[in-house]
Amino acid sequence: MEEHSDSQMKIEKGDYGYVLEDVPHLTDYISNLNTYPNPLRFNPAYSVVKQYFIDLDDTVPEKVIVHKNDTRGVHFRRAGPRQNVYFSPDEVHACIVTCGGLCPGLNTVIREIVCALYHMYGVTRVLGIDGGYRGFYSKNTRTLTPKFVNDIHKRGGTILGSSRGGHDKSKIVDSIQDRGINQVYIIGGDGTQKGAAVIFEEIKRRGIKAVVAGIPKTIDNDIAVIDKSFGFDTAVEEAQRAINAAHVEAESAENGIGVVKLMGRYSGFIAMYATLASRDVDLCLIPESPFFLEGEGGLLEYVEKRLKEMGHMVIVVAEGAGQELVAQSNSATAKDASGNKLLKDVGMWLSDQIKAHFASKKHMPITLKYIDPTYMIRAVPSNASDNIYCTLLAQSCVHGAMAGFTGFISGLVHGRHTYIPFSRIVDHHNNVVITDRMWARVLSSTNQPSFLRPKELIEFQKAEEHVLMEGENSSSSSGTSF
Amino acid sequence: MEEHSDSQMKIEKGDYGYVLEDVPHLTDYISNLNTYPNPLRFNPAYSVVKQYFIDLDDTVPEKVIVHKNDTRGVHFRRAGPRQNVYFSPDEVHACIVTCGGLCPGLNTVIREIVCALYHMYGVTRVLGIDGGYRGFYSKNTRTLTPKFVNDIHKRGGTILGSSRGGHDKSKIVDSIQDRGINQVYIIGGDGTQKGAAVIFEEIKRRGIKAVVAGIPKTIDNDIAVIDKSFGFDTAVEEAQRAINAAHVEAESAENGIGVVKLMGRYSGFIAMYATLASRDVDLCLIPESPFFLEGEGGLLEYVEKRLKEMGHMVIVVAEGAGQELVAQSNSATAKDASGNKLLKDVGMWLSDQIKAHFASKKHMPITLKYIDPTYMIRAVPSNASDNIYCTLLAQSCVHGAMAGFTGFISGLVHGRHTYIPFSRIVDHHNNVVITDRMWARVLSSTNQPSFLRPKELIEFQKAEEHVLMEGENSSSSSGTSF
Amino acid sequence: MEEHSDSQMKIEKGDYGYVLEDVPHLTDYISNLNTYPNPLRFNPAYSVVKQYFIDLDDTVPEKVIVHKNDTRGVHFRRAGPRQNVYFSPDEVHACIVTCGGLCPGLNTVIREIVCALYHMYGVTRVLGIDGGYRGFYSKNTRTLTPKFVNDIHKRGGTILGSSRGGHDKSKIVDSIQDRGINQVYIIGGDGTQKGAAVIFEEIKRRGIKAVVAGIPKTIDNDIAVIDKSFGFDTAVEEAQRAINAAHVEAESAENGIGVVKLMGRYSGFIAMYATLASRDVDLCLIPESPFFLEGEGGLLEYVEKRLKEMGHMVIVVAEGAGQELVAQSNSATAKDASGNKLLKDVGMWLSDQIKAHFASKKHMPITLKYIDPTYMIRAVPSNASDNIYCTLLAQSCVHGAMAGFTGFISGLVHGRHTYIPFSRIVDHHNNVVITDRMWARVLSSTNQPSFLRPKELIEFQKAEEHVLMEGENSSSSSGTSF
Amino acid sequence: MEEHSDSQMKIEKGDYGYVLEDVPHLTDYISNLNTYPNPLRFNPAYSVVKQYFIDLDDTVPEKVIVHKNDTRGVHFRRAGPRQNVYFSPDEVHACIVTCGGLCPGLNTVIREIVCALYHMYGVTRVLGIDGGYRGFYSKNTRTLTPKFVNDIHKRGGTILGSSRGGHDKSKIVDSIQDRGINQVYIIGGDGTQKGAAVIFEEIKRRGIKAVVAGIPKTIDNDIAVIDKSFGFDTAVEEAQRAINAAHVEAESAENGIGVVKLMGRYSGFIAMYATLASRDVDLCLIPESPFFLEGEGGLLEYVEKRLKEMGHMVIVVAEGAGQELVAQSNSATAKDASGNKLLKDVGMWLSDQIKAHFASKKHMPITLKYIDPTYMIRAVPSNASDNIYCTLLAQSCVHGAMAGFTGFISGLVHGRHTYIPFSRIVDHHNNVVITDRMWARVLSSTNQPSFLRPKELIEFQKAEEHVLMEGENSSSSSGTSF
Repeated sequence: MEEHSDSQMKIEKGDYGYVLEDVPHLTDYISNLNTYPNPLRFNPAYSVVKQYFIDLDDTVPEKVIVHKNDTRGVHFRRAGPRQNVYFSPDEVHACIVTCGGLCPGLNTVIREIVCALYHMYGVTRVLGIDGGYRGFYSKNTRTLTPKFVNDIHKRGGTILGSSRGGHDKSKIVDSIQDRGINQVYIIGGDGTQKGAAVIFEEIKRRGIKAVVAGIPKTIDNDIAVIDKSFGFDTAVEEAQRAINAAHVEAESAENGIGVVKLMGRYSGFIAMYATLASRDVDLCLIPESPFFLEGEGGLLEYVEKRLKEMGHMVIVVAEGAGQELVAQSNSATAKDASGNKLLKDVGMWLSDQIKAHFASKKHMPITLKYIDPTYMIRAVPSNASDNIYCTLLAQSCVHGAMAGFTGFISGLVHGRHTYIPFSRIVDHHNNVVITDRMWARVLSSTNQPSFLRPKELIEFQKAEEHVLMEGENSSSSSGTSF
Repeated sequence: MEEHSDSQMKIEKGDYGYVLEDVPHLTDYISNLNTYPNPLRFNPAYSVVKQYFIDLDDTVPEKVIVHKNDTRGVHFRRAGPRQNVYFSPDEVHACIVTCGGLCPGLNTVIREIVCALYHMYGVTRVLGIDGGYRGFYSKNTRTLTPKFVNDIHKRGGTILGSSRGGHDKSKIVDSIQDRGINQVYIIGGDGTQKGAAVIFEEIKRRGIKAVVAGIPKTIDNDIAVIDKSFGFDTAVEEAQRAINAAHVEAESAENGIGVVKLMGRYSGFIAMYATLASRDVDLCLIPESPFFLEGEGGLLEYVEKRLKEMGHMVIVVAEGAGQELVAQSNSATAKDASGNKLLKDVGMWLSDQIKAHFASKKHMPITLKYIDPTYMIRAVPSNASDNIYCTLLAQSCVHGAMAGFTGFISGLVHGRHTYIPFSRIVDHHNNVVITDRMWARVLSSTNQPSFLRPKELIEFQKAEEHVLMEGENSSSSSGTSF
Repeated sequence: MEEHSDSQMKIEKGDYGYVLEDVPHLTDYISNLNTYPNPLRFNPAYSVVKQYFIDLDDTVPEKVIVHKNDTRGVHFRRAGPRQNVYFSPDEVHACIVTCGGLCPGLNTVIREIVCALYHMYGVTRVLGIDGGYRGFYSKNTRTLTPKFVNDIHKRGGTILGSSRGGHDKSKIVDSIQDRGINQVYIIGGDGTQKGAAVIFEEIKRRGIKAVVAGIPKTIDNDIAVIDKSFGFDTAVEEAQRAINAAHVEAESAENGIGVVKLMGRYSGFIAMYATLASRDVDLCLIPESPFFLEGEGGLLEYVEKRLKEMGHMVIVVAEGAGQELVAQSNSATAKDASGNKLLKDVGMWLSDQIKAHFASKKHMPITLKYIDPTYMIRAVPSNASDNIYCTLLAQSCVHGAMAGFTGFISGLVHGRHTYIPFSRIVDHHNNVVITDRMWARVLSSTNQPSFLRPKELIEFQKAEEHVLMEGENSSSSSGTSF
Repeated sequence: MEEHSDSQMKIEKGDYGYVLEDVPHLTDYISNLNTYPNPLRFNPAYSVVKQYFIDLDDTVPEKVIVHKNDTRGVHFRRAGPRQNVYFSPDEVHACIVTCGGLCPGLNTVIREIVCALYHMYGVTRVLGIDGGYRGFYSKNTRTLTPKFVNDIHKRGGTILGSSRGGHDKSKIVDSIQDRGINQVYIIGGDGTQKGAAVIFEEIKRRGIKAVVAGIPKTIDNDIAVIDKSFGFDTAVEEAQRAINAAHVEAESAENGIGVVKLMGRYSGFIAMYATLASRDVDLCLIPESPFFLEGEGGLLEYVEKRLKEMGHMVIVVAEGAGQELVAQSNSATAKDASGNKLLKDVGMWLSDQIKAHFASKKHMPITLKYIDPTYMIRAVPSNASDNIYCTLLAQSCVHGAMAGFTGFISGLVHGRHTYIPFSRIVDHHNNVVITDRMWARVLSSTNQPSFLRPKELIEFQKAEEHVLMEGENSSSSSGTSF
């Protein structure tokens, strides 16, 4: 998928610096579309609701830390059902696809899209695309009904199957057109949503009446703008087991070290929150915070110091931490039979480095245990909190699609469900801001040094100036519920 | 505790309708107080932080669903560390008290107040008040240190003990004065925070330099203004076990009915969220939504219909649901040996009513199992998400106290930690708004009728008009993380 | 079901006092039956097995604590596949019924009977009887296949449904005969197995070629002869949650008392083992050990003493404990509107008695929390250990039925699977022997007094002399795995 | 530790082929020892017990599957308190040491030895040896009291710390002698108990009045003679999580394969029982059952076939499975920078082999996820069943030591606690007998082939003839509770 979405942002302005970054709508490129009264009006469950439909003017600010004389800034459109919809129930032919790695809650999202379409809007044609994007053209589909999806939220994984890649724009849009699909629900991470944006552009180019709606998924919680991604709470909860085990192993051995690798290729949110929730961690390493091993102020010195003080320690390392060090190290060491270098994961690499360091210190034998709970975390069903979160994300998404919005993702902003243009989330992702208080809390809880040399520190602080200026600290912004 | 706090609100106004509802400060009634540079400046963990201290002007809006030409409305002061503090570390003598029923996370809050005082501010005198308010004058205290509290977050309950009532203003303030305590941290529910407000007024009246800071606690999640109360996520999670058990019992019997009573004396949040998270519930009863048993459209008719269709059903009932019906019913029935009427809890009462109804229908024998998991839910340790939430609440509270704020509670508003005046939370509490979409989602998920007669419906919609006018739907406002 | 089984025991004698208490066989009342080679011979999974078939002479002694000059005593027939079977696969028409209350593992037993019949013996007609005994004549049946039962072991309860009673001998045997069923698998407790014995007698009387095989089920673990009943381990495990909650509630209150009611109508095994596993219990009350409330050495005195020493306590009470006291108490107290006395469960009754006692002691206010986790325990899926145990019980049962044995239950004796005549288990049930060491261990762990007055003590010791003489202590005998 | 124990077996014979394999006693090598009445006589908790003391003649047969004309065979001495003891409470100075890898239940065993000594026998001097055998001479000790150990059974690991090796006979016995220790409790695996045997011999040689008692520990459950080792149930339970995760990962991908490595260096009990309990496993590999990868009937062919049929599969592999294959493979492949070959664990090796196989089949892309839950399993606290089992093992051990027995381990035989001479367990260990029914059950449940070529099969069957002749199938013998 080489192309990029080139949608222009829809901007609307208001008083006192108010800006609305709106999402596309079918009417942007198709004229004379029929509208229909929202079927929810006739739904008994909603008969008591006074003001069910979202006021068309409801928006949510991107920024909620404000000064008394600030201007109002960027806003997003509030999610929810509209008075009128752009599809009649009979007309809708929806499909759902899940892409990328597993994440707790995928099945709940699938279930709730199906149920919202059936029960709220009377839609009866919902297709499951099997095995990710390539399922559009190379695999079977399956019919999704409320009965079929009834218990799936109690199981981990995705009943639709998933895969990476497989994004062939033309084949996919051909398939959508051929099948007469007019609502496409795409659940996946950064790359997947980039693909969704391209599909949206192509559909728009062809002038098809079909909406493309995304629900961002990443267990790493590094999606920009939104409060947190679904499944993150569950993942942090489940990570506690591994940390506990590492703690027990470490405590039960002489100079015991427990190393736990957690998810987080580019951002350390899971490692950071799991560390804060556990309180048994003595060192937390994340991609955003560089470290070095040898010498004064280095990691090995700290490990040695900690073992001497406490007799044991627990290390949590995000999978993307210290990548440059791992890469350097690999080039010099192991090769397989064909001479290819063996890429090591950072957890094993770090474990080997620590073992090698202490191997030379005969007087200080260590016992190191390495735990990689990745797949055990990804595969659990979502907890109650994520179940409800997934439900609301799915319902918001369906409301938006029925109302004719397209090219958007459904996301929580400051506790409110909103519609956000693809462009806002595919080009950036969130990182832990290590000059922010949340990371300082981790350092304070673990007592680890920052491993930053004075020069690095200044650079970091400069680099993040821009971020801090714009709105507010992004690391706390992605931890709304915390 | 008959008296009421009579603090006047501190109001500050800004551009474009901006209003700040500020919290009291020691300087409001004591002049010439010394300030000190915040010790965090010298804390190695915070050495990397660029802009650690909160801008004094940071505030958070109460309302985040806005229109482009809205005025800006009420704001709260953002929580966090200030450049200068009003206590030197040596001077601080803090105490912590927990009041009311158990709630997951109490021990984490205690732990983190202690750790924040010690590790962030270098305070070394922290006292635990034993057994609630009356512990100030009739019980022993205990010294709290980071070592003592190190593992307490892994246990349910409160290590300080708790109790209801025992609020004798004069004795408490005498005790505070006698012991030289100058920071009072009070963790408890509505009644407890009312007491805290009275203590604050008395301390102010006597002109003592002592801050009173509250952390609102209620497993029912019915505290006004804030996003959600700590422990709520854990409670909803744990409630799933009981619902699952009820579901299994119901499915395994002929016309099996599983009844689960959940917490919620005045508000049905736990019942509502537990129902939404589970998806196995066929009827959810909450205090806010009246129902009737007999006749057309009544509860018994619905139960019968549902059993005929499905062969089994699960009922979730909040403890405060249907109180008028229970009261009527009790007056007519059981008395104990002394002639006192035996008050039944609603779960048992409802179970009896259903059994009695079907007892007369010989052709339709039912099997009803009643589960009351209340104490099993309250007593679990907090989950990872609540652990982190409690940590941030505690730290915010300590930052506020050190900065000289008093008469406030620490609360999350739209994902941001803020300081809120007592008056804003003690006079109101949140309810499920049954004319709002969240409740409609429950009705849609259970397929239960609303049990509202047309006349009642109109009244409800009227009654809630005011609420809806003021800000936004309160039921969704208390479910930020959802 | 008034009748009793009158089968005479099949006895075989051997050297040195050896006695075999054998189970009935189809050939006992039908002559000239065909036999077939066991299909397992041709099963690839069993191709590696050297000596798959049980030696026809294999037996297991009832008594394994022996002296060097003891005689050999009673033995049971070892379970397992026989060289020859009395049914061809095509001929078999099996049915499965579950009766009585829920117990973890029911679904695993159902699953494994179905799978053993299909996969080991090539049987393809297996019927599920719906809703207990009465399902034979008043309810639908369902076809059970390996695919249908594939995941049921992961769910609690019984997919067949269950009920109590409904045992109409003639209708049931008529139904068996009419449907051409020739293998009847009956899973249920004491009463259910009595019914199975009667069905067996009637089938024998009518001369039908149909075997009746039982798998004893009781969460209370009070079945005679066998090591333990399935689901018991899981129940003891799950009970820990309730005890933990009671402990937390008790510790967090002034003079806090946590009361947990556990299953055990006639025997206190769950209460006893849950107490031993937990170590947080201060008083364990079981049906076998009488107690009294008032006066010196009474329960209330002990509670008071314990509260004074420790400030809190946890009480575990089996549902059948203190029945005489509850009965007396009820007669004098509460009545409902129609004048019927309200029977209280012992947990509530005890809670009320304790509250009433302390109500008069103003200086010693207590906080009592009562937890009844019964249905939450019964409804969980079986744990791994019970899953395997259920698998082997089911397979043993199928092997026995195929081999033509009938009128037997499948049971574990000293870790070996055996076939035991109905009569051995329906006429007795196991009790905790309170003059035995296992109960002494409980007393030692809780520090509670025995509540036995000298005269009672002597009677107890006399009463149990017979038991002790016969074999060995029955309470330890039912705790094989412990 | 090069030496071996050379204790001669103490044999006693009786009628009809009865043989008692007794354990050593202090009086075997010290004459004129005082005895004392057992303090339990005066213990209030035991006042109700009728026949508390074990009859000195109580023994338990090794073999419980018997024929009517069998002779009686080998027996072990029953564990339990004796009328008289060889230590006065004041005189006892006990120590406890834990060696080897972690296993659920270690802390419970420690706790219960301490409590039995204190509460049953009035002993007040109990020492914890820190960090395994070498703790006797190179580390600190700690004083163990009931208060100190009160809650440790709720935590995983061992509070004493553990290590491998460090067995220096002379230094250990010197240390025992110097400190005046006269009861040595040793908890550990095969190697540890060999060490215990050597210590016992040396103590005997020196004529010291000190008993050596072992509690065998191995999470692998491969200890000879006994029913099962403590912690095994918990480990099998916990392994289910990893298998579930592997199943979810496999199901959610195209040709998904989940590989789970479980403990079991020489025996496959955990893999076998975890497979049987789960039912989601398609291939179970254990050390006892050889397999081959390539060609007809090989593992890769089976994997391919299974993927084609089902689209996904789960593989469980014990860590000791296929060692010869891994070794061959390593020799040819990867080396580290210094030229040392990188030993791979079998799980990774197998994963690589499968990936390499399918890499060449472009039309059949697979997704393989490898999970190693080893440390997460070892580190959990013991479940309720293991808690009780550990309690009884510990108490039995203490009763034996007080009664003057030495050179024994405490073990469960057919559900009865016994004393077994070291020699019986250190020279053999249990294996899964792959020509036995238990393994056939696994094959039947997974549908995997046996991977045995006809010639191997015959050899296997021959090799195990001896085992089967002697007693009974050892694999079922180690699964008493199943």
